Amino acid sequence: MRVRSVTLHDGRYLSYYEFIDSDWTATTGVQPDVASAPRIGDDRSSELRWNPLLGEWVATATHRQDRTFLPPADFCPFCPSTEAFSGEVPESNYDIVVLENRFPSLQPNPGIPSVEGSELSPTVPARGVCEVVLYSSIHDLTLADAPVQQIYKLILVWTSRWRELKKLTFAKYIFVFENKGEAIGVTLHHPHGQIYAYPFVPPRIQQELDASKRHTEETGNCLICTLRAAESRAGRRVVTENETFSAFIPFSARWPYELHIVSRRHFQTLGDMTIAEQKDLASILKTITAGYDALFERSFPYIMAVHQAPSSEEDYSFYHFHIEFYPPLRSATKLKFLAGSEAGAGLFINDTLPEVKAAELRARVRPPVWP
Amino acid sequence: MRVRSVTLHDGRYLSYYEFIDSDWTATTGVQPDVASAPRIGDDRSSELRWNPLLGEWVATATHRQDRTFLPPADFCPFCPSTEAFSGEVPESNYDIVVLENRFPSLQPNPGIPSVEGSELSPTVPARGVCEVVLYSSIHDLTLADAPVQQIYKLILVWTSRWRELKKLTFAKYIFVFENKGEAIGVTLHHPHGQIYAYPFVPPRIQQELDASKRHTEETGNCLICTLRAAESRAGRRVVTENETFSAFIPFSARWPYELHIVSRRHFQTLGDMTIAEQKDLASILKTITAGYDALFERSFPYIMAVHQAPSSEEDYSFYHFHIEFYPPLRSATKLKFLAGSEAGAGLFINDTLPEVKAAELRARVRPPVWP
Repeated sequence: MRVRSVTLHDGRYLSYYEFIDSDWTATTGVQPDVASAPRIGDDRSSELRWNPLLGEWVATATHRQDRTFLPPADFCPFCPSTEAFSGEVPESNYDIVVLENRFPSLQPNPGIPSVEGSELSPTVPARGVCEVVLYSSIHDLTLADAPVQQIYKLILVWTSRWRELKKLTFAKYIFVFENKGEAIGVTLHHPHGQIYAYPFVPPRIQQELDASKRHTEETGNCLICTLRAAESRAGRRVVTENETFSAFIPFSARWPYELHIVSRRHFQTLGDMTIAEQKDLASILKTITAGYDALFERSFPYIMAVHQAPSSEEDYSFYHFHIEFYPPLRSATKLKFLAGSEAGAGLFINDTLPEVKAAELRARVRPPVWP
Repeated sequence: MRVRSVTLHDGRYLSYYEFIDSDWTATTGVQPDVASAPRIGDDRSSELRWNPLLGEWVATATHRQDRTFLPPADFCPFCPSTEAFSGEVPESNYDIVVLENRFPSLQPNPGIPSVEGSELSPTVPARGVCEVVLYSSIHDLTLADAPVQQIYKLILVWTSRWRELKKLTFAKYIFVFENKGEAIGVTLHHPHGQIYAYPFVPPRIQQELDASKRHTEETGNCLICTLRAAESRAGRRVVTENETFSAFIPFSARWPYELHIVSRRHFQTLGDMTIAEQKDLASILKTITAGYDALFERSFPYIMAVHQAPSSEEDYSFYHFHIEFYPPLRSATKLKFLAGSEAGAGLFINDTLPEVKAAELRARVRPPVWP
């Protein structure tokens, strides 16, 4: 895998990931200089404000309000540039591209906060990284439609970016995710994911870390290994499995089609995977995303969240790498909303049984054939 | 205030709240017998499943999938019944009605769980109460449009139901809320709110209780009193205030138009309010909901969540009664979605500045005139 990094006219970095070497898994070439990336305009500063009632940070990123909203396919900023139209990628073709988000919530060199905080509610500059990962140059090639090899390449790119971003001293957590579909609020359709480097371990991850640590201390076992093994044994909620990964709708799913992809082996991060595991993960990601699309014969919206250990040197050997999908659909045409009980009190209500949804989805999946 | 309770043909209870006495604040009449309410059908059982990775319960309520979805106005189940159409309320007129939810997530006498849990992921019957509160017999009379006296009546009904439901031994938390608008997933437009009696303190409330308790232990002061006083002093985020309540967009708002209504006096529950406070709360609820509607000249969707202390006899004197609004709009036509960062990692990104949104809303509010 070869990286070629350029600076865009507005100062952002962009890297082409090319798979022309014989060894795809070794990264060569020049990575972007993230630490010294210039600030994206004074009017684009964002900040973190502390919420003392919930004990959580919230980011304010006002310039994002103006972000590009569902442009026509001819004017897709993520398609290769042509003579007629210049998008964000200044070349006529590419394989996989990583670039700084034009409307970042977090920046390596952020501006000062717009308001002064207080002792109870401090503010800090929103330091971090927001990158966009373009899965391919083809405008409508979602993971569900992509060749499994392209997904394998994507996993190699995620891993390469994780290795680079965790070197940044301010980066405490590297979060790889994808928002897919207008039902999730996606404003650009060209298949892409995102990578955030947070300056703290975000609360949802901290909850999982705390529960995992407690379980290991109490039992000597990994919580997620135990849950995965129980799901594989029960089988009722398993959607598909291969040599190294299981995909199931978890026993206590919040969303009707929530799904977890969990490694059989106990490891913590993207960087811990063997080549066999990377290939199996590519297979199972293809199987699941294509299965979702087959279910209602429509492009299936989802949030995909890669959950791995924080990037600090602390011991997180109790934690377990996995990927979570939260699709907002409860039927072909109906959405699951987070309403009063979920948003106001925190009790999620799932209108379906995980066992039933797993059976539905299981009937639709078909593992891909590698070339 | 007089309560008149009846049993519907499907066994559910329904209570009419009538304001014909000279003293509205004293409740007379017969309350429904919630504790011995019959189970709503075997096919309608729901259960609580424990999520050991997040340390939270999730409710599965499969029958809700079939709930009535946006019927035409002529067939509104919450309008008074006519000769031509029988809705859920079997009378030709009413003032305020409370009835058991036809599609409850929690029931006083639930069925047994559909699956057996495990030591790590136990299941329990979903015991609790789900009530619907019909704000008036008029099909389109939202809080924004209602006379302020009707909102005052509603607060009296909330308080009466809170007093009744907290007597149930299994009820650990009484949650009053409203989901408004299709953008929130509302399936019936007739203005109504809901009351849930949860069999545990839900996680969002527990977070606030923990932070409030810690702050009081450390400083001797109430956290929410301190935050409210700071907002009133700063003024920039205040939308409106009266003698006993302040309404502001909080410093660390997650949603562009998130708003908190906080009592100036330190108290814990609906039952602690004086008549003057109940009337001021009615005024400020009217002011805010009408202000929201004026903002974009459209019926403004929101989640409204009443946050009060749990209903057990424990000492919650450190906590502070308030109402939170989470509107999903970020502009007249654009929605704020919970996507990867929010759902997958837990960092909320607010695309706007609370100071700017408060000024917008402040320019639109006008306190109501009492008759």
